Parts: sequence; structure tokens; C-alpha cells
Amino acid sequence: MEKKYVYGFGNGSAEGDSKMKELLGGKGANLAEMARMGVPVPAGFTISTEACIDFYRLGKEESIRLLRSQVEAGLKELEKIMGRQFGDAENPLLLSVRSGARVSMPGMMDTVLNLGMNDEIVKGFARKTGNERAAWDSYRRFIQMYGDVVMGLKPENEDEIDPFEKIIAELKAMRGIELDTELSSEDLRLLSIRFRELIKKKSGKAFPSDPWEQLWGAILAVFNSWMNKRAISYRKLYGIPDDWGTAVNVQAMVFGNMGDQSATGVAFTRDPATGEHVFTGEYLINAQGEDVVAGIRTPLQITLEGSRRWAALHGISEKERKEEYPSLEERMPAAYEQLFRIQAELEAHYRDMQDLEFTIEEGRLWLLQTRNGKRTGQAMVRIAMDMRAEGLIDDATALLRLDPEKIDELLHPRFAEGAEAQSTLLTRGLPASPGAATGQIVFSADLAEEWAAKGKQVILVRIETSPEDIHGMTVAGGILTQRGGMTSHAAVVARGMGKTCVTGAGEIQIDYKERKMRADGHCLREGDWISVNGSTGAVYEGKLPTRPASISGAFEEAMKLADLHARMKVRSNADTPHDAGIARKFGARGIGLCRTEHMFFEEDRIMAVREMILAEDTAGRKKALAKLLPFQKEDFKGIFGAMEGLPVTIRLLDPPLHEFLPRDREAKQEMAKNLGVPLHVVEEKIESLQELNPMLGHRGCRLANTYPEITEMQTRAILEAAISMKKRKKTVEPEIMIPLTSAGREMRLQIDVIRKTALEVFREHKITVPYKIGTMIEIPRAALVADKIARCADFFSFGTNDLTQMTFGFSRDDVGKFLPIYIEKGILEKDVFQSIDQVGVGQLVEMATRKGRSVKAELKVGVCGEHGGDPSSIEFFHRTDLDYVSCSPYRVPVARLVAAQAAIKEKKQGGLDIVPIVEDRCEMDTGS
Amino acid sequence: MEKKYVYGFGNGSAEGDSKMKELLGGKGANLAEMARMGVPVPAGFTISTEACIDFYRLGKEESIRLLRSQVEAGLKELEKIMGRQFGDAENPLLLSVRSGARVSMPGMMDTVLNLGMNDEIVKGFARKTGNERAAWDSYRRFIQMYGDVVMGLKPENEDEIDPFEKIIAELKAMRGIELDTELSSEDLRLLSIRFRELIKKKSGKAFPSDPWEQLWGAILAVFNSWMNKRAISYRKLYGIPDDWGTAVNVQAMVFGNMGDQSATGVAFTRDPATGEHVFTGEYLINAQGEDVVAGIRTPLQITLEGSRRWAALHGISEKERKEEYPSLEERMPAAYEQLFRIQAELEAHYRDMQDLEFTIEEGRLWLLQTRNGKRTGQAMVRIAMDMRAEGLIDDATALLRLDPEKIDELLHPRFAEGAEAQSTLLTRGLPASPGAATGQIVFSADLAEEWAAKGKQVILVRIETSPEDIHGMTVAGGILTQRGGMTSHAAVVARGMGKTCVTGAGEIQIDYKERKMRADGHCLREGDWISVNGSTGAVYEGKLPTRPASISGAFEEAMKLADLHARMKVRSNADTPHDAGIARKFGARGIGLCRTEHMFFEEDRIMAVREMILAEDTAGRKKALAKLLPFQKEDFKGIFGAMEGLPVTIRLLDPPLHEFLPRDREAKQEMAKNLGVPLHVVEEKIESLQELNPMLGHRGCRLANTYPEITEMQTRAILEAAISMKKRKKTVEPEIMIPLTSAGREMRLQIDVIRKTALEVFREHKITVPYKIGTMIEIPRAALVADKIARCADFFSFGTNDLTQMTFGFSRDDVGKFLPIYIEKGILEKDVFQSIDQVGVGQLVEMATRKGRSVKAELKVGVCGEHGGDPSSIEFFHRTDLDYVSCSPYRVPVARLVAAQAAIKEKKQGGLDIVPIVEDRCEMDTGS
Repeated sequence: MEKKYVYGFGNGSAEGDSKMKELLGGKGANLAEMARMGVPVPAGFTISTEACIDFYRLGKEESIRLLRSQVEAGLKELEKIMGRQFGDAENPLLLSVRSGARVSMPGMMDTVLNLGMNDEIVKGFARKTGNERAAWDSYRRFIQMYGDVVMGLKPENEDEIDPFEKIIAELKAMRGIELDTELSSEDLRLLSIRFRELIKKKSGKAFPSDPWEQLWGAILAVFNSWMNKRAISYRKLYGIPDDWGTAVNVQAMVFGNMGDQSATGVAFTRDPATGEHVFTGEYLINAQGEDVVAGIRTPLQITLEGSRRWAALHGISEKERKEEYPSLEERMPAAYEQLFRIQAELEAHYRDMQDLEFTIEEGRLWLLQTRNGKRTGQAMVRIAMDMRAEGLIDDATALLRLDPEKIDELLHPRFAEGAEAQSTLLTRGLPASPGAATGQIVFSADLAEEWAAKGKQVILVRIETSPEDIHGMTVAGGILTQRGGMTSHAAVVARGMGKTCVTGAGEIQIDYKERKMRADGHCLREGDWISVNGSTGAVYEGKLPTRPASISGAFEEAMKLADLHARMKVRSNADTPHDAGIARKFGARGIGLCRTEHMFFEEDRIMAVREMILAEDTAGRKKALAKLLPFQKEDFKGIFGAMEGLPVTIRLLDPPLHEFLPRDREAKQEMAKNLGVPLHVVEEKIESLQELNPMLGHRGCRLANTYPEITEMQTRAILEAAISMKKRKKTVEPEIMIPLTSAGREMRLQIDVIRKTALEVFREHKITVPYKIGTMIEIPRAALVADKIARCADFFSFGTNDLTQMTFGFSRDDVGKFLPIYIEKGILEKDVFQSIDQVGVGQLVEMATRKGRSVKAELKVGVCGEHGGDPSSIEFFHRTDLDYVSCSPYRVPVARLVAAQAAIKEKKQGGLDIVPIVEDRCEMDTGS
Repeated sequence: MEKKYVYGFGNGSAEGDSKMKELLGGKGANLAEMARMGVPVPAGFTISTEACIDFYRLGKEESIRLLRSQVEAGLKELEKIMGRQFGDAENPLLLSVRSGARVSMPGMMDTVLNLGMNDEIVKGFARKTGNERAAWDSYRRFIQMYGDVVMGLKPENEDEIDPFEKIIAELKAMRGIELDTELSSEDLRLLSIRFRELIKKKSGKAFPSDPWEQLWGAILAVFNSWMNKRAISYRKLYGIPDDWGTAVNVQAMVFGNMGDQSATGVAFTRDPATGEHVFTGEYLINAQGEDVVAGIRTPLQITLEGSRRWAALHGISEKERKEEYPSLEERMPAAYEQLFRIQAELEAHYRDMQDLEFTIEEGRLWLLQTRNGKRTGQAMVRIAMDMRAEGLIDDATALLRLDPEKIDELLHPRFAEGAEAQSTLLTRGLPASPGAATGQIVFSADLAEEWAAKGKQVILVRIETSPEDIHGMTVAGGILTQRGGMTSHAAVVARGMGKTCVTGAGEIQIDYKERKMRADGHCLREGDWISVNGSTGAVYEGKLPTRPASISGAFEEAMKLADLHARMKVRSNADTPHDAGIARKFGARGIGLCRTEHMFFEEDRIMAVREMILAEDTAGRKKALAKLLPFQKEDFKGIFGAMEGLPVTIRLLDPPLHEFLPRDREAKQEMAKNLGVPLHVVEEKIESLQELNPMLGHRGCRLANTYPEITEMQTRAILEAAISMKKRKKTVEPEIMIPLTSAGREMRLQIDVIRKTALEVFREHKITVPYKIGTMIEIPRAALVADKIARCADFFSFGTNDLTQMTFGFSRDDVGKFLPIYIEKGILEKDVFQSIDQVGVGQLVEMATRKGRSVKAELKVGVCGEHGGDPSSIEFFHRTDLDYVSCSPYRVPVARLVAAQAAIKEKKQGGLDIVPIVEDRCEMDTGS
């Protein structure tokens, strides 16, 4: 028996369905599904992927021989359904031909539209539509597409101009016109001739005027495109087997520009901006799809309600509206009725908001496409929660529908719609911390503070930031830096603060002395207004209007639902009561990382810190530290208060001491004066603390093991704060965290100091509070000896930033010189400081967790690096069975959602998606 | 039946033997063994460890009850053998009482000598010896020791002065004398009274005058000492169980100061300086052991031959010698004869060169001690090889007898004997690279070169060195730096060159401007002579005589024997034909690491390197690289020539580019002039290449993946050099090594460049050469993904320096701030840059080897870090089954020996010693 290659669809039935993707490709299967549902799709047929495979096996001649009768039969059926004849000048049937593999492969082969035209048929088509220009435009477009795609004139290099476009440009120059729409029918006819001449010249073959020859040419071109260079390299990159083959979809063309009873439009089953459950969309009478997009004519609203809303918004009277801007509901009630019914069916069928394209040809409705509609973050949440309430989808599906990155959108201010398009773009940097901010330029943290105190809105602009700039960053509306990556100081601190930040805007030039900056030819001075978009990296001149973040009820509902499904807890990184408050508002279940060093930078404390650094002996250091104690205690009381009843992990002092010392001469002199020592003493100390590789230097518990008195002071501050809370009947759960541990005994010595101090404090106050002691795992060795470290730890918290730095040997401050090249060359798939490297660094995370729990089953394990807020990383941490992730306050909702999604995916699929890793493809090239 | 607690020995027999260490302790078992051999040891008895355990179980009273009769019987036997009576004033028997556990526990309990004296007996003893002063001196020493040890007057704090010494000091002050030897008999008698008064006052108890009471006091004190604080913490540190207990050795005292027929001396069975097989030693008539050591009287030679040699050396006539400096052989022929026979027996028994202590009391010879003698490196090798030849020991024993660190001694020049003692020590730094060097101070590499060219011997003195100083280091006789550790630039380069180097001499102050340095109050100027000992870190003022390294025939023989037994091969790190030659001479089986960057620093090349760095595009870089090509090619030809027939691993460019740029303004200006660009271009480039953490920056294959043209040039140079060797019929085995790999695909891209270039070169020259491609494993991630990397690698070479840096997160340039404290606090057992951290870093080495071989069984795996020359690390690498270690040329013999020892130990013990790791003891303190 003959093998079945051709599967027809249309007129309420189809030979295939949506489950037959392997045989019919994604597109063919979906068209069949729609037809089956009774949706009026233009009829057509799909030539199966098997035909493509056989084509490569049997060759062109044999393939055509096997296909011919089936294709001819398919086309006959198609003509019958559409009531037109292929190749007939009086009542022409035009076709579209598209490739369609199992999975979408963008850019593999373009579409050929309007196939089935020649010099005769174009005239008949013009007569039938009564639109000569449209007919000739369709014809020249067909020749152009056919020439590019089937006859191979499309330039391989994407930067090169299409040769057909060159001819159009020449003609327009000759005519002295600018837009394609200004070309006359005659011009378009001329183009159809010139195009065919070009094809003849370039390919050596004449453009076929026989519609059947056109059709076979297009079908074979699709088969051949499966093995073109772009397709092969795309498949190689995404691991798609070469022997899948592609299907070919041949479908009737329909036209919305056939007169007053024709129209075309797009519609959404729900409002894609707000998520509201209303049918909405726009249409144009006597027009083609591209006219809606081109924006030359004003599209009309489909529904009466929508039309009235629109009119009210534009101050148009009901009378004028009815006459000039009628809704489809009014204008073509029957077609509208049908469309409304279909949209409801499609949404119910696909169980998601649909984005439809439709055409009405002489009163007859055709659906050209349906797909899940793009939507704003707000709409995404509302639609998911509404559909769940409506019983359309279950909890799991509702949660999986939420895109974590879009959740983030809801948590930060945005620019008013359209504001950016109307503004002058100065430059683009890295989108380091999302949100939108506008303010007056300041070049120093001090001025930021001064101006902010006067009520001014400021944007802090720095070459790069350092801990000395914190006070300025705190008061600025946004931050812009010339240098630094996504994990530079500015980026990390800004994300922690939930503050809009753009970093690494390399094109701007800042002149601190002259207090001005240059960007894209503009010169801006201190006090000038700029606006920064931390979600895109864009920097604009002037003051753009912003909108505050809005959190709808559906969002709250979604978050609660997420918590019900998640296994991992979400904590937040927060260093101040203010941040802790935000984190709690966003649903954090405790603090996973409270850095204490930021507390040391405030003006009233930094002098005591510097005094400690300059001290010559333990006694001197203790004296200076005693001055810091009351401050630290108050800090901790504030944070404990904000996190009452929840655990608070406090990391002991981490940075190297030189970070606390001044850099410029003036500040050094001031320090010397304040501490009553000669300038050279200050300078010598700074010199002696210099390090070649500070990242690998004297910091973390190395500092604390050199100067245990620092740990003593911090422990005392933490526990005295906890005691004072307890006396006020407030529950506190302090967790003391030791940074940068690399060996068991290193940890042990710190623990001894902490426990000894704790005993002293408890005895003095005659009261005890429960507390835990744990450590960061951020040094590769710590992961390797985690079983030894775990013996004396209550918890582990992965510092994946540093762990990534040391495991890769990448300094994140310097990585900008080669990381972009590494991503471009495919050595790394992504920025490993944003999304954890599961294969390498992840191996250490997994190892440390396993080894740690092997000696202490109840060990609490979390992560507090930047990766704690990254979706694919959070999935990985879930898979590694961590107890919690901790991220910046503004990422907490994202993390809660991803934690839930990870748990759901695991349950549903019996496992999580494994991110494909370039690493795995280091096989030897056979040619080398 | 009564339990046997007391085991006697003496008079040619003993109740114990050397196998009874558990019961009799190490000392008791050995004394028994000697007695059994018929060696005349002063008789005595050992109270077993069991008695000690029972003492703790039963208490003092019951213990004495059980012991009394056995101790009394033991003492009776002892009196019989020695012919003296304990407690008898006329013919007194004096005793020594010592503790002796299963293993030696230094400092647990001191010895009590001369026990059994009181006011009466001291007088009898004086009469008997005819030496009143000696008698009183013995008495007061006994009281002092007994007071300290038994009656607990010894201060716990070691820094505190012994209260008895205070009294002696007071008396000397009163008498106006300085030396103890100046004290008269009367003074000593006075001291014996004062001492007893002190004891009464401090302990509240009278010093016992009853010898038996003295003896029981001493025995119980030994038992009690097992549980003193020092002993407990010592056992805790070394993991010795508390329930082993200690034995007590009670032994007769003998005296070499009993007149003309008495003597005392030390002897060696072979010459400890040269290893020559001759009996040798010194003695004094009528003296005590301490007199020989004190050096007040000139000791005489024991053998006639030795005596004659000595006289010849000192220009003393045979007549004078015979009268004034007779040998023991002449003076007491019978005793000598007996001693000679015994020494031969002892050596044959212990199968090693023995260091003996003996006393002749009134003509009767007593052996007080025998132990394996300390010896020089030269003697060590000769004795081992001789004994092997004599059939005394087998190959394995001979090789295990060689101390690797002493082998090193043979390979470097030394100061002439005694020269250091007579010189002014300026300071001590770190012994960074062994050997002895003397020369005139120069403070710059340029001046070093200038002066060396004039034939001057120079020592290069720098605050620290950088790659720019290489030319000065090359010509200097030695190097001294103020900063930097054992693995600083200076140290690593110097060891590579086999050049004497002292680093981190923190006490010296260098003033480059004034061209002078201060050290220990001395001011030295450029041109002044200093001498540095790289084996000890000592720095002396002036010109000390040096001796060249000597390699004897026995040494050669030992090395060949080692190679027969070793499983691992030993290669060398060498960057020049000269070093390669030395390495080969020392037995290297190839080059494991040839760094190419040093080749870039020479004057005629650095400009091309800088031109490349400044180039704005690939074409510019290629142009500059083309200038370097001929130089590199010549470099490689030289190295291939020196290593003909052996593999040469060449590492592609590793350091960050900024290392090749000048630092001071003058050099920058010169560079700008040479390259014909404005100064600011140079300055901006330098600025743009700055890195915060250069160790983790843009270097290694990151550079090569950014600028593949560097790899192209180096590959071409390597293969063209290899081809030119092949044309001259010389076998070459180039191995191209990619540095700093962290991912499979990173390696893959470099391999593609290398193979492509190789094909080009082979086509151009119409000839091919075999070559291998491998990578350093020096980034933790590389070890974690070694299975992926191995797929495209022919070999791995562990760069354990960087691997240690990144695994610990320690910058070796900055680690000086805390590493000493970490070692002091016991967090780390040793400098992990000297001796590999087996628990952490070693885990990665083991993992990478295992993973690598899991996908490629034939993968060659070696190590080329500094650890490749460290004995305990080499043992570890053997255990990890590496194929080779590579170390600096001067460490090659050491590595060959250790590789053999590792193999032997594995075979003998079925495993190697596992170094005890502090890490393992991170248990929770129960008290906390």
C-alpha cells in the first residue's frame, strides 16, 4: 500500500491532530487541531516529516513520484473547500507554503505567500478584488519571497542587503519618493518584471510562471532547507537530531482586502495589559494584516464595549463613534458573533489567554492563528489566578504560568507608558538592578546626601562605587556607573536596597574635577536631570514620569499559593531594620544574611573602626571595639525587632581591614587629626594593609582568628541585643555565621570565642537566649571538607558569589575583560555570577550538602549568594535539597514563586529540567 | 601468684628484651637488649608500665605494698653486680631514676641523677673519688633535680627561672664570680644547705635524707608525672592513649672521674662527617660526660689512627702526641679493645652507624648509651651504600635510610665549616632557596648585570622581586628580599635557578634612593659584602668562604638504585637550555614545565611583546607576534636539544599582560618612544589592564581565548623548532600545555587553534612531528569537570600552587599576614604552599585523576607545582598514582629518592604513612 504522506485539514475536520507533532511538525499539528475543533481555518494540507526523510533517502525524482498523486488530491480537496481553483485566472486559489519541524527552529526557512500567481492570474485577482494596486503588490511580494527562499537569492550574510530591496530603493530614488506605499500599481508591475529579470540573471533560471511548478519548487525548497547551514548549526547548538526532518504546510490564502465586507484584525481573549476577563481587539475594514501593524490607518475596536471605552478616552461622542469608529460587533454582527464564540472555545481548549489573528473575506470569517497571548506581569498574575478560580486550570498550572522575571516587574517603579520612546537615549549600560528612576545628577556621595537632605531627587553617577559611597547610594533615587558588571559593588548593593541601578555604561565619560559627564555627544553637568531604567540598562536625558509599583490582590493570592507548594523556604538578605521590614512585607521567612560591615561605615562608627585598625595591641583594639559595641547592639535590636519570631543569620565581619581606611589624602589627614596621630602613621598602616589579591587575602574569619576580639565584640552585641528583646517578651532566633571558613579547626577556634563570650554575657545578665552557630561555605576547600566542618556547625550557608569566584578562578571585579567573550564563544552559556554553574560550582554545593548531612542529618543548609534570587539557580538548589534560599528583599516574591515551581515540576515530571550545558559537548572533532 | 612488676638487667643478661616495649617502655626495653647482648651497661631494673597503671587503679599505699619486695630484690641484685651498697657511706651505690613510656614523650618527666646521697654519703663519696669538689657538686645537683622534679619546685611556666638557679646566681654575685666552675667545694656545700632550706620553705616538706625514701619519692613522682598537664596535652596532641602508663628505670650511676684509671667519652662506629668505615671518637681521662661537651679540656682521640691524623692536622709531632695527647688505644689498651669489639657488635646488631657514650670507671668499661648516630648528608649516603655493599642491609633499607632533605644538602654550595659561627649575623629571613652565597650588595637588577659583567660577585637585594628583575637574578650569586614568603616570586624563581635565596627578611630596611639598607643596627651600602645562607635564612655581614657542592660516587649509586625502585618518574621544571642541562645531569626524565613567559622578558623581545599589547586589532597583534616567533623558535630548539629523546612540556603564555608593561615613568616614556606613540597611550593601556585581583584575572588560556593569535605563534614556534630538530635526526617529544583551563569547551577552542596551526606548519614544511596537547589542572573547577576536559586532553599536569591558592582562597602574595598565625594556632599543620594539603587540595588532585582516567585510561597525569619537590607531597602523589612529578632541577635527586621510598614503603607496609591532619580533630569540646 502507498505510504500516506499528505494530511489534509479544513471545513471542520482534519486527518491529523495536536498529538501528531512528530509526523506533522508543530505548526501542521496545531492547524489540524483547530480545524478539528470546527474553527474556520483556511483549508490546507501538511506533507509529513516522513516525506522529508524519504526525500533525503530516495532523492528528488522518486520523492516527487511518490508524492504527486497525494499532493494533487490534497489540493483538489482544498479547492473544493475554498471554492476556488489553483491556477485559474478568474477565480484564483493562492497558497502559502511554510516549513514546520517538530520544534520551532526560527530562521530555518522563511514563508512563501501568495503562491500560484503569474502575469495572467494577477490580472484576474485584480479584477476580483477590484484593487489593482493590492494585486500587483501581492504579485511582486510573491516573486521576491520566491526568489529569496526558493531560488536562493537571499544573501547568506544577514548584514548584506536583499538584492530585491536594492531594486526597490533604486526605483524609489528615481521616483523621488520615500515610502513603499507611495509606489503606484504601475511601479509595482515594473518591479515584478525587474525582479524576474534579476532572478534569471542571478540564478540562471527563469522564474516559473506555471503555478504547479511554483508549488513543487517551494515544497522541495522546504525539504532542502532542512540541511542548510543555518539549520544544521541551529540543531547542533540545541541538540536536535538531524533525522527528524521537517514537514511542509500548504494552505489557502485568504484576503481581508476584498472590499467592504472584508476585514482583518487581532484579538485577545482577555485584556493583555490588566488581565481583566474581557474580549478585546482591533480590526480594519478592507485591509490586510500588515495594515493593522503598519499604523497608517487607525484600527477600530472589535467589541462595542471596547469601542465605547476607547471613545470616552479620546473624547469622542457616541454619534461620531458610531459613524466614524464603529465596532465590529456593530458593523458585522454575524462575523463578530462567530468570532466571539470561537475565541471562547479556543481559550477553553487551550486553557490560556489566546492571541488571535483573523481575516473576514467577503463576509466569511477565517482564523489564521491562535497562540498563547503575551501579557504584562500584572495581567499574567491576574489571568492565572482568575482561570484557577474559574476552574480552568489547577494550582500547579496556575503557578507554572507565572514567569518569575515578570513577577519582578511588579515590584519596582516603571516609567510611564510611552515616556521612553519620546526621550533622548544617552547610552545603554547593564540592567544591574531593576526599576525606573529620575533625578538630578550628582557625582559624589556627599553631595547626594546634601541635596537629598534638601528634598532633591538625585541620581548618583560614579565611575564605580565603593563602600565609602554607601551613604550616597542610600539617598539616591538611582545609581549609574561607568564601570563594573552585574555583580559589581554598585550592582550588588543596589539590588540589596531594591534601588534602580545601571552599571558598566562604558560609553559615558565622567570628569569628577569638572563635575560633568559626556554621553553620546551630550555634555551633562551636576544638577542636570537624567533618567535610568534599571530593567533595560537605558539611560535618558531629562526627567521622565515614573509609576510606582503596584501589587494587586491576585499577586498576594499567587504568593500564598506558592508558599503552599514550595518545599524550600525563602529568606532575605538584609542589613538594616528598613530592609528587613521590606523583606518581611514581601514574605521572607527570616534573614539569611545580615552583613555587619555596612554598619561600620556610618560616620559615627568609622572612626572607632579606624582606631581599632591603628591600635598596636589587643588592649588598644578592645578599647576601640568597646566604642562600637553600643552601635552594633542597637543595629541588631532593630533587625531582631523587624524579624520578630523569625531566624536572623548575622555574618561576622568579612571584608579586609583596608576597606575601612580612607583613600584620598584629605580623608587621610582628617583621620590622622581625629585619631591624634601623625599622617605618616596612617599612611604606613594603609600601605601595610595593601594586598595584591584582596579577594584571597586577610578577611573573613582569617581576620577574626588574628583578632578574636572582633568576634567577641560582635557576639556580645548580638546576644545582648537578643537578651534585651527577650526581656521585652519578644522571640528572637539569632544565628551567628562565620565567614570564609576553609578548615574545621579554623571554625572551631571561632566557635570557642563565641561560646566563651556567650557564657560571659549570659552570666552577667543572668539570662540566656538560644542561638546557633554556623558558617558560610564559600571557599572550595570548605565544600571539600564539609563533613569535618559540619561536626561543629549548626548550619551551612553557601556564599555562591565567592564560591564561584574561587572555583572558576574568576575575580568578579575583573571578569569584564573576558566573560563577555567567553559567553559569545559559547565557552560559558551564561554569566556564572548571575546563574549558578551547576556542573562545576554546583558540584561543590551538592558535595558539601551531602558531606555535611552525612555527619549531621539535622544540619540546616541554605544559600545567601546573589544566586539565591535567580530562577534557574533556585531550581538547582531545590534539587540539591537545600532548606532555604536567601535573596535581596525585592527578589523574595520571585524566589517564593520559583521554589514552588521547582517543587511542582519535580512532582509532575518526576524530576526537573536539566539545563543543557555546553560543557558536555567537548567531544573531539573528527577532522582534527 | 604475685604479679611481676620489676625486670632486672645487667651483667650480660636481662629479664626483658627490645620486643617488650609495651611493658618496659622504649628505654627499659633497649637497656635490656644491650645487657642481653653482653654489653656492659650499668646494672639496673625497670618497673613496668603495668605497675603505673595499677598505681592509678589501686592508689599509692597499695602500690608500694605490691612493689616493695620486688624493688628491694631488684636493688639487691643491682648492688651485687655493681659491688656497691645503696645508702652505704663508704662504698655508696648511686642511682639514676628515669621515666620511659612506650614512645618517647619529650619533656614529660626529667631525670633524677645521683640519687642515694645525703650529708654522710657525700663525704664518703668524696673520699672514695678523691675529688671533694666533684662530690659536693654531684650532691647539690641531686638536691636540685630532686627538688625540681620530685618535690615540684620546677616552675610550670618555662620562661620562669628555676628557683635553685636564682640561689646560685645570688651566691655568684656575692662571690663576684661568673662561672659555675668557679664555685668552690665550700660554696657547693653551702648551696646544698640553701637548696634544702628552699625545699622546706616552698614545699613545706623536708628534703629526705634517707636514700630509700628518696628512691620511693622518685618512683612515685614518675608515676604521677604520667598525669601531669604537659603529659596529658602532649598525648592529646599526638593521639597517645592515657591508659598506656609509663615505666620507671632505676639504674646504677658510674663515674669517669674516679681517678687516672677512669675516663669518659663518645664514639662513632663510622665517621659521621664523611661516612668512612673507621671507628672514631674522643675521650677524657678522669672526667664526667659533661666535661667532654663543655669544651674546657681538649678531648683526645680514641683510636691511634685518629690520634695520628689529628696530630698531623694540628702540626703536632709524634713524640708530643704520644706524651700529651695519647689515644685511648695506647692509654688503656684493654678497655679500648673491649670498646672496639662492642662497637662492632652494636653496629652489626642495630645495622646502622652507632653513636656511643661510655665511661671507664677505675678501668672498667661501661656503655651508657647507644643510638643511631647523626651524620652529614655525605656520610648518610656513603654509609647506606657501604652497608648495602657489606650485606648489612638490603636495597629498600638503604634507600629508606636516606633523608631527602639531607640529599638536598649535597646539591648546593655551603659555607666553610665554622665560618658562620665567627661572623656577624645581620638578620634571619625565610630559607627560600638552599645554598650559600657571598657577594657585594646591589639594589637593582640593572646594576647586578653591570657589575656581574665586570666579574664582580653580587647579591641582589630587593624589597621584593618582579619579572622585570629576572636578568639581575640570573647573574646574582644570591638573592635577598625584605618581603615575600616561601613561594614569592623571588623564592620560586630562585629555586628554579638553583640559586641561593633568602626572602621575607622583614627586619631589614631598604632605601633604594639612598642605595643603602639597615639591618640589626648596621648600615650597609651598595658594594658592601654580605653572605646569605639559603638553607637556614641567615644573613651575615662580610664575605664568608664557601664550599662547592660535591657529588660522590655513592650518591650516584644511590640515585640509580632509587630509579630501580620508583614507580613515578621525575621530570624537571626548566625554562632554559641551561636549566634543562642541569636537570638532565640530575637525572630528570623530561621537562614537566617549561614556562614560556620568561622568554618574553629579554630586552630584544619585550618591545615586541609591548607592541602586541598596544596593538588595536588582530592584524597589529599578529605583526608584533611575528617578531617574537624567531626568538621563541630558538628558545625551543635549545631546550629540545638539551632534552633530546625525552618529553618536553611547554606551557603556553600564562601571566596577565600587565606584567609585561613598565612600572616607572622613565620606562613608560622609553616604551612610548620606542613604539612611537604618545605617553598617554601607554599610560591608558596600563591603566586599562589594571586588575583588582590579578591572580583571578585575565591570564592563562583566558588570554589565549581572547587573542588566539598568541597560541598560533607559540604553536608555530614549538613545532617549527621540533621540525628543525627532526631534520637533524634528533628525537623530540613536544607536549603543548594549556594553562588555567576551567571548562571543557575552553580547552576545545584552544586545541582547535593548535591543531589548525599544526596542520599549516606541517603542510608548509612537508614534514610532521608527533606532539601531545594537555592542560594544567590548577583551577578547582577543572578538577571538578576533569572527566569532561580529559576527553580532549592527552595529559593533565597539576599546577598545585594555583590550585592551592584557589582551593583555600589564599593569595600566596598576601598570605604572610595570617599564615604564620594559622600555623601557630594549629589551624594548619604546615605551610600548604610548601607541602600539599592532602585533605582538601589533595582531594581535588585525587578526584581529577580518577575522573580523567575514567574516560581515558591512558591519560598521563603529573604535577608541576612547587609541591613536586616536597617529600611528603611526593609520597601523596605516588599514592594518588600520578605518572610523574616535576620539580626544579636541584630538587630532582630528592624527588627521585622520595619516589623510590614511597614505592618501597607501600610494598613493605602495604600502605604509606598518612600524615596526621589537625583537620580531623574538630570535635566539639564537651565543656562548651
